[in-house]
Amino acid sequence: MPAPPASTDDPPPRRETSRRPGGRSARVRELVHRAVREQLVAEGFDALTVDAVAARSGVHRTTVYRRWRDVGGLLADVLDAAADDAWTPPDTGGLLGDLTALNEEVLAGLTEDPPITMALIAASFRSPDAARALRRFWDDRYRRCAALVGRAAARGELPGAGTDARALLVAATAPVYHQLALLRVPADPALPANAARAATLAATAGAFTLPADGQRVAG
Amino acid sequence: MPAPPASTDDPPPRRETSRRPGGRSARVRELVHRAVREQLVAEGFDALTVDAVAARSGVHRTTVYRRWRDVGGLLADVLDAAADDAWTPPDTGGLLGDLTALNEEVLAGLTEDPPITMALIAASFRSPDAARALRRFWDDRYRRCAALVGRAAARGELPGAGTDARALLVAATAPVYHQLALLRVPADPALPANAARAATLAATAGAFTLPADGQRVAG
Repeated sequence: MPAPPASTDDPPPRRETSRRPGGRSARVRELVHRAVREQLVAEGFDALTVDAVAARSGVHRTTVYRRWRDVGGLLADVLDAAADDAWTPPDTGGLLGDLTALNEEVLAGLTEDPPITMALIAASFRSPDAARALRRFWDDRYRRCAALVGRAAARGELPGAGTDARALLVAATAPVYHQLALLRVPADPALPANAARAATLAATAGAFTLPADGQRVAG
Repeated sequence: MPAPPASTDDPPPRRETSRRPGGRSARVRELVHRAVREQLVAEGFDALTVDAVAARSGVHRTTVYRRWRDVGGLLADVLDAAADDAWTPPDTGGLLGDLTALNEEVLAGLTEDPPITMALIAASFRSPDAARALRRFWDDRYRRCAALVGRAAARGELPGAGTDARALLVAATAPVYHQLALLRVPADPALPANAARAATLAATAGAFTLPADGQRVAG
């Protein structure tokens, strides 16, 4: 859901003296991921080749081929690394505030400069590996956001005994993705709050309430 | 919103004896459009060249270059032709039924075989001309769907004096696009109705109601 964090996953390459556990292998991975993102934004998917990434990263091309195999493998690893972070959903004390803050993150991701998130979405239409990795990334984010829905339920903001957390979260965030990534309308600053408000009203009215014998319970 | 009609815009090429007004120029356009769609589905954007389209259509390449210039021009014209139809939004007698039927059309478009709609969406990430044309197509569909919202308002299904028709329609349809085109989850047959229900509940609760001095009134 929130767009892949563009630059928070890979810290700048460290000097030899501050090499962290993981050492050379982790540093190579950071260099290569950075090169993938830079190459994708600068020249697009068509110019994203293993050789170009190797050249930009300064890592030997044999190493890149051996470890990532092809462009699909590179993109999938960049996305998998983006999911390997400590991100947690917003916690503002209320469902509407949480969903609005979440949508602000999505909007920021989709309009960031350089447009890494949009480049990764575009790449997912070219590479099945990238498409699968993007889905894994989003699935992971949705799972983490179940905590947000669980808190709302605990506060008594949601009717019934259980809520389909994913359906609620998709309803809240989908309009932001739709307007920005597919319709490509200019970003409306009110969109995150408006979409959050509609989803909250729908949730309050029971749109995402599970039947009494429902298996899935939020939180 | 509803996905571009794949095959309803261009009837099969007619025989000389039944040539309709528009004549040769219209027939050439039909042949070329058909070739663009077939080429896109069969071999993808990378193999979509003016020469390949000319060869597949049987139309002389000089004619294709002169009239459509490049791949962006071809894709844009295919999408503009798709919008040049008599499509009207569903009219089931109720807002929930209308939005559900609309979402069924969207789902059918996104899961059709051959996957022309998905191929056009993918192409919009490659060609700015195609992206603009896809946006024009969807904008036109949203405008036509304002009638659906207007009827709901006239039936007293919506609170307040006016409704932001586009926001309501985006809320209803966006989850279908999000799940199918971006998250690429398997199509859930209940998704059209569930997304329509959430948007209807939100609308009933006033999520899309315009302020009393609002400029835009549905219908």
